[in-house]
Amino acid sequence: MNKQAIIHRPTDQHAYVCADNSVNIMIQTQKGDCKGIHFIHGDPYDWEEKKWKNKKIAMRKTGTDQLYDYWQVTIKPASHRLRYGFKLNDGENPLYFGEGGFSAQEPNDIAFYFCIPYVHVSDAFQAPAWVKNTVWYQIFPERFANGNTKNDPKDTLAWGSSEPTADNFFGGDLQGVIEQISYLKELGITGLYFTPIFKAYSNHKYDTIDYLEIDPQFGDKETLKQLIKVCHDNGIKVMLDAVFNHSGFYFPLFQDVVEKGEKSKYKDWFHIHDFPLIFEPKPNYDTFAFTPFMPKLNTQNEEVRNYLLNVGRYWVEEFDIDGWRLDVANEVDHGFWRDFHKVVKGIKPDLYILGEIWHDAMPWLRGDQFDAVMNYPFTRNILDLFAKESIDRKTFAENMTAVIHMYPASIHTNAFNLVGSHDTPRILHECSGDKRKVQQIFTFLLTFIGTPCIYYGDEIGIDGDGDPGCRKCMIWDEEQQDRHMLEHVRKLITLRKNHPLLANEGNLSFLPVEMNSHCFAFMKEKQDKTIIVIFNLSDQEEQFTLPAHQNRQMPIDLWTG
Amino acid sequence: MNKQAIIHRPTDQHAYVCADNSVNIMIQTQKGDCKGIHFIHGDPYDWEEKKWKNKKIAMRKTGTDQLYDYWQVTIKPASHRLRYGFKLNDGENPLYFGEGGFSAQEPNDIAFYFCIPYVHVSDAFQAPAWVKNTVWYQIFPERFANGNTKNDPKDTLAWGSSEPTADNFFGGDLQGVIEQISYLKELGITGLYFTPIFKAYSNHKYDTIDYLEIDPQFGDKETLKQLIKVCHDNGIKVMLDAVFNHSGFYFPLFQDVVEKGEKSKYKDWFHIHDFPLIFEPKPNYDTFAFTPFMPKLNTQNEEVRNYLLNVGRYWVEEFDIDGWRLDVANEVDHGFWRDFHKVVKGIKPDLYILGEIWHDAMPWLRGDQFDAVMNYPFTRNILDLFAKESIDRKTFAENMTAVIHMYPASIHTNAFNLVGSHDTPRILHECSGDKRKVQQIFTFLLTFIGTPCIYYGDEIGIDGDGDPGCRKCMIWDEEQQDRHMLEHVRKLITLRKNHPLLANEGNLSFLPVEMNSHCFAFMKEKQDKTIIVIFNLSDQEEQFTLPAHQNRQMPIDLWTG
Repeated sequence: MNKQAIIHRPTDQHAYVCADNSVNIMIQTQKGDCKGIHFIHGDPYDWEEKKWKNKKIAMRKTGTDQLYDYWQVTIKPASHRLRYGFKLNDGENPLYFGEGGFSAQEPNDIAFYFCIPYVHVSDAFQAPAWVKNTVWYQIFPERFANGNTKNDPKDTLAWGSSEPTADNFFGGDLQGVIEQISYLKELGITGLYFTPIFKAYSNHKYDTIDYLEIDPQFGDKETLKQLIKVCHDNGIKVMLDAVFNHSGFYFPLFQDVVEKGEKSKYKDWFHIHDFPLIFEPKPNYDTFAFTPFMPKLNTQNEEVRNYLLNVGRYWVEEFDIDGWRLDVANEVDHGFWRDFHKVVKGIKPDLYILGEIWHDAMPWLRGDQFDAVMNYPFTRNILDLFAKESIDRKTFAENMTAVIHMYPASIHTNAFNLVGSHDTPRILHECSGDKRKVQQIFTFLLTFIGTPCIYYGDEIGIDGDGDPGCRKCMIWDEEQQDRHMLEHVRKLITLRKNHPLLANEGNLSFLPVEMNSHCFAFMKEKQDKTIIVIFNLSDQEEQFTLPAHQNRQMPIDLWTG
Repeated sequence: MNKQAIIHRPTDQHAYVCADNSVNIMIQTQKGDCKGIHFIHGDPYDWEEKKWKNKKIAMRKTGTDQLYDYWQVTIKPASHRLRYGFKLNDGENPLYFGEGGFSAQEPNDIAFYFCIPYVHVSDAFQAPAWVKNTVWYQIFPERFANGNTKNDPKDTLAWGSSEPTADNFFGGDLQGVIEQISYLKELGITGLYFTPIFKAYSNHKYDTIDYLEIDPQFGDKETLKQLIKVCHDNGIKVMLDAVFNHSGFYFPLFQDVVEKGEKSKYKDWFHIHDFPLIFEPKPNYDTFAFTPFMPKLNTQNEEVRNYLLNVGRYWVEEFDIDGWRLDVANEVDHGFWRDFHKVVKGIKPDLYILGEIWHDAMPWLRGDQFDAVMNYPFTRNILDLFAKESIDRKTFAENMTAVIHMYPASIHTNAFNLVGSHDTPRILHECSGDKRKVQQIFTFLLTFIGTPCIYYGDEIGIDGDGDPGCRKCMIWDEEQQDRHMLEHVRKLITLRKNHPLLANEGNLSFLPVEMNSHCFAFMKEKQDKTIIVIFNLSDQEEQFTLPAHQNRQMPIDLWTG
């Protein structure tokens, strides 16, 4: 056995407490190395005649990626305490594995075993219960709908009359969203994620001027209240975007520093290397990327922390928002996010906190900071298979297995799954205009675990390259909408709602790709129900032989009904 | 190369921010697999002509255990942001490793690389600066010195007149410690760790009755104030023991539940399964182990949390203690310890928080809970080599290498290293009475990284099996003390103070055991200084050839002077 490939540590995805007092344990072994693994477990203080009393149960193999097999077990320790180890079976001799390393015989010394000292539900990762059943829809407010022409900015262009650029305006606003609520309701989405709506300079509003005011181009506080009420009345949650990593250049407190230099009392609100301030070619203060227009806020400064925590508090307390999406969340310190978590959940315990993190986000997902992150590793894998065809079906299944074993399972059911956003080329563009590919991608997105998010307009076939191309005006003329795509998405959302196995219930597995030459399938199982989702990646009709199943009922085709 | 054995994730011991704005990165590879590793690093936003600008530097191999080689590098990113990967060299083809997996060519896609998004010093693990230079001494107050016979409990036995049992008393108290301060000062120790001193029933006081009172057998609050003043005047820090996992059976609030059952307003202060309470054969409430006399406190209950946080606050605020040692710390929830950390450090930022955890303690050592844990994996390895002779020199070096690569380096320099305590047989007993072994163990303890702790009396050769045998009365008659051992320990402490390389400075490495047949040695290096500590494990005199060294000065024997 490849001993170095046997990976387990009692933390993170390998061992965690669940909300029902159970503990989930995962171990990795080299792909194909083990025939089976038994989980040895007991209470550390439970002894009889100098022998530790333990039990053994078989672990379930929950997936295989390019390098490892993953094995899991869920256990509910009667006394809340758990010592445990693994008995690995390679078909020849058993090998025992614990914190003390490896042993050919079963050790009786408790120090050999791993430890979950006591099961505290308060330490369990617990996202708000509503999140895992949500289908999100992302709105870039300047481009969704113009409901009030009175608040249009200067030089507003006629709706959709031109290509989007970094600095043109089309007049989209909050009133526009209110007026289109029936469109959203009929589509079936149950959560709206708005990119920033606070007063800012640009059309994307990621360069905040005033964190406590609605951008006048979008409406006012009264409009936001109405919008949230309309959403709540229609069973739709509302998530706003908090840009706490940096302010805009025209944030008055940064302007104070620009003006007064070293004498500004706000100089420690930012990360300024020296004075006077320099803006070109590279700013002499920390920024988002190297953009002088987005000076980084010093969240380690208590004044800044209190200021931003108050912003977080204000919109929850006064406007009853349901979620905060945190922009560039990874570049803000953990201490700030721990405080943020306490403050906003203190006001509204079922508030959702979603961090923008593109890479491995484990340190933010330990229950004390975020409920989820934007699941870009998921996105990449989907694009590679369906859009770019740069990987094969087997690699796709292996990569997706790696993605869903990266964090505790409770995190994956709340993951924010997306196939495009205001930061990426649109999905139709990624698929080089091939709508059949987009349909397959929506099918995967809306039948897989996690919480899917649809980027406004993707459901009606809007195209566009990366920023600013992906920020075109929403098309409201039905004749110009791709109604076929819209029906496809709507049907998928309905199916997902009617069949929890298509969302976050059941055990997931990928079917061996050898079962067919061009199809790819995954299966969700729970008790006596099984759903298989099959994708035909070829241009031809294909035969797909369903796997043998103990419960030999005639299968039903959920798609055709 | 064994790809499954290449282990790195940007968290915990593998990647952490240091107090000086640097980042330490560690990677593991299969023992002997790599000839060298280059660390590829750059700012994620630093591009030139569509090519990511990065640099490469060689990593340092910092040790080898039974399975892995460990490689480290420290880097200070100019822009505070770090993307990084590894170029592994097995002597043939290079292999690139990043968050995206493996690649034969150097990837230009930033998503391939690992990420430390921004270096925040506020996220660095930072134990109080004084800790790493401390030599601790553990006192079990009932058995150290009787300074005031007026507070002796009923049936107190004459000092040292009999073997310790689970329930006899000898009259040790706080006044006794005050009177022996010159002994401690001369020994050279700079920190005292007291097992519990609050009002309790037993002689060990781990069954608290009143968390806000000194046990009258030990003195009163005035005596404690005097003791702390005397210690501080003599450069000695004082750490008390907080037993927050459970109370004593006679804790009035538990007695209220015993008396009133379900009607007690304190019933939710404990984990009671059902009423009426049952004590035998197993209690129907959670306890420490299965001991009915130690009912577990429900630290998830806000009332309990506030009560205990106030206890934590009180002794720091009113008595200026320097540290809290937390009993059975692993069985209390993380949320409580995060609050505790905030409260006590809020009053005294350089307060030391030491958790009693015998197993892998990574989840408590992420900077938001404890500064250190009791380093029992260190203890076990020392006993196995020196006392029990159950492992050989090579295994010892490998195990110790594993121990010091288990957590970030900044944690190891503050680790609470011990070779015995009130919970284990005394070190002389573990060595079957062989004082030469005890001397070698003290030599190792007092020249290695971490903060060493001496269990009262071990320095004068007191023996005793596990609890209660290890709790004998301190011997004050110099004729009965092992003065040779005492001089040995005193000399080691002096050397440690005079030569920071013998404490927590420099780079540590174990010398290959092949250099000699019975000796074992480790080396500490810093700039132009090198110290080698050599142990002869045989009965005979041995030749030891020093390793070649560029700085060819004549070596000095620090021991003989």
